[in-house]
Amino acid sequence: MTRGTHVSDRHPRAESIRIRERLTKHVETGVVALAGLIAHGRGEAFDYILGERTTSSAMRAITSAAAALLLARRPVLSVNGNVAALCAKELVELAEASGAKLEVNLFHRLPGRDSAIEELLRDAGAEEVLGVGDAASARIDEVNSDRRRVDPRGILAADAVFVPLEDGDRAEALRRMDKTVIAVDLNPLSRTAQLASITIVDNVVRAMPLLVSEAERLRALRVEELRTIVSAFSNRDALSDAMRLMEERLHTLSEKGVYIELHGRE
Amino acid sequence: MTRGTHVSDRHPRAESIRIRERLTKHVETGVVALAGLIAHGRGEAFDYILGERTTSSAMRAITSAAAALLLARRPVLSVNGNVAALCAKELVELAEASGAKLEVNLFHRLPGRDSAIEELLRDAGAEEVLGVGDAASARIDEVNSDRRRVDPRGILAADAVFVPLEDGDRAEALRRMDKTVIAVDLNPLSRTAQLASITIVDNVVRAMPLLVSEAERLRALRVEELRTIVSAFSNRDALSDAMRLMEERLHTLSEKGVYIELHGRE
Repeated sequence: MTRGTHVSDRHPRAESIRIRERLTKHVETGVVALAGLIAHGRGEAFDYILGERTTSSAMRAITSAAAALLLARRPVLSVNGNVAALCAKELVELAEASGAKLEVNLFHRLPGRDSAIEELLRDAGAEEVLGVGDAASARIDEVNSDRRRVDPRGILAADAVFVPLEDGDRAEALRRMDKTVIAVDLNPLSRTAQLASITIVDNVVRAMPLLVSEAERLRALRVEELRTIVSAFSNRDALSDAMRLMEERLHTLSEKGVYIELHGRE
Repeated sequence: MTRGTHVSDRHPRAESIRIRERLTKHVETGVVALAGLIAHGRGEAFDYILGERTTSSAMRAITSAAAALLLARRPVLSVNGNVAALCAKELVELAEASGAKLEVNLFHRLPGRDSAIEELLRDAGAEEVLGVGDAASARIDEVNSDRRRVDPRGILAADAVFVPLEDGDRAEALRRMDKTVIAVDLNPLSRTAQLASITIVDNVVRAMPLLVSEAERLRALRVEELRTIVSAFSNRDALSDAMRLMEERLHTLSEKGVYIELHGRE
C-alpha cells in the first residue's frame, strides 16, 4: 500500500483510513466506481466483526486456492476496480506465480474504466491484460451487469477463475459453466461466498500477499500433492468457521453491552 | 424515498439498491461525500446481519429518543450529507414535532456542500437551517474534523443533540459537554453507539418515520411521564440486545455453513 496520506500512524484506524483514501483517490482516476465504495464499506464491517485478521480457516482457503490455480490448465484472475486500486502489484505477482492470465472484468463498464485499470496493472508489471475494450467480446448468460462481458481468450475459456470481490450473479454463472471459482469475500453470508468453490473470507489486502507466497511455495509440489490439498478443503466448513468466529466475537462483546466508557479507552 | 430508478421491484435487494442509487446520485449534487458512501456500506452490512428490521429494543430507543427531544429546552437535529440525502422530509417533520432546530454539521465541509444540504432541507419545508457558511462560527474542542464547527445558536447551546450517522469523536465531545446525545447507528460496537446517551440501532430510513410518529404521539404527555420513559431506558441493555440478535442470526446461519445451493434460491 502506498502511503502519502495525512493520517497519523498512531490513529487506531490508520490502516483502514489509508485504504479508504486510496479507494476514494481512485474514484477520480476512474478505476473505482461509486458502488465500489459502498461495497468496500460492507467489507469493512464484516472485517471489523471478524477481528481484522487472517483466520486459520481463511489461511487453509488461501492454500487451497493457490493449489487450485496451479492445477488449472487455463487459470484467469478477474480484476475489478477495487482490487486493482488496492492490490495491482500482488495481482501481477500472483499471475506470474500461478501462470494465470489477468482479465479486467467490471460490474459497471464506464467509458475508459477498463483502460485505466489496464494501465494500473501494466504499471505494476503486467505484460498482458485481457478484457479491455473490444477484447471483452464474449457474453456469459444469466449475468445482469457488464460482468457478463468476457474475453474469449480469458474467462470464457478458463477452467479456474479467481474472482476477488465478486457479485453473486456472476459467481453463480461461472459455477454453472463448471469452472472452479475462487472468491475473496468478507461476508460469509453473501451469494458469492456461498456459491464459490473456494471462498477466502479475508480482507483482500491481507489475503493477496499470502496467496502469492502460497502459490510460490506450492509450485514445487507434484500434481497429486496439489490435488490432495484441494480435495481436503471443505468450503462449507470454512464458511461455518468464519460465521462461528464472528458470532463468538459478537457474543463476547454483547455480554458487556457498553465496553467503551466515556472516560476510558477502547 | 423517491423512486425513479431502473431497479425492478421484484429484485430481492430492490430497496437496498434504491437507497444506494439515491446516495450516489447525491454525490453529484455535492450533498454526499465519498467517505459517506463507504460509511453507508458499513451500515448495510450490520443491517443485513440484524435482519433489516426495526427490533423491539430499537423501538424502545426510538420512544425514549422522542421523549428526550420533547423534554429538552434546546434540542437540535444535526444533519450530515447521508441523512439529508435519505431523510430530508422526516428531519423537517421531526423538527416540527419536537420543537428542535435543524443544523448542518459535516465531517468534510467541502465548498458548497453545506448550502446544497440547506437547499435539500428547505425544499422539504424547513424554514430555518443553522450551521451554514459563516453561521458555523463556534468550535468544539477535541474534534479532529470539520464536525467541530458548530452554530452558536444551535449545537453549541443545545442540551440535546440528535446525531444520526455520527462519528465517535464528536459523539464523545458532545457527551463531555453534558449534552444528551441521541445517535442512530447500525453498528452497536462503534464508539458513537457506545458513547451516546440513547443509541437507536436501526437503519435511519426505517427509524426516522417512527421517530416522527413517536414525537407526535408523546407530545400529549406530561413532563413527568416523559421523564419516566427516558429514565426507564437503558442504553447498555439496548446495545447488548442488538449484539445478541446479530449473534443469534450468525449462529443460526453458521450451523448450516452453506445455505445457498447452486440450484436453489436464498
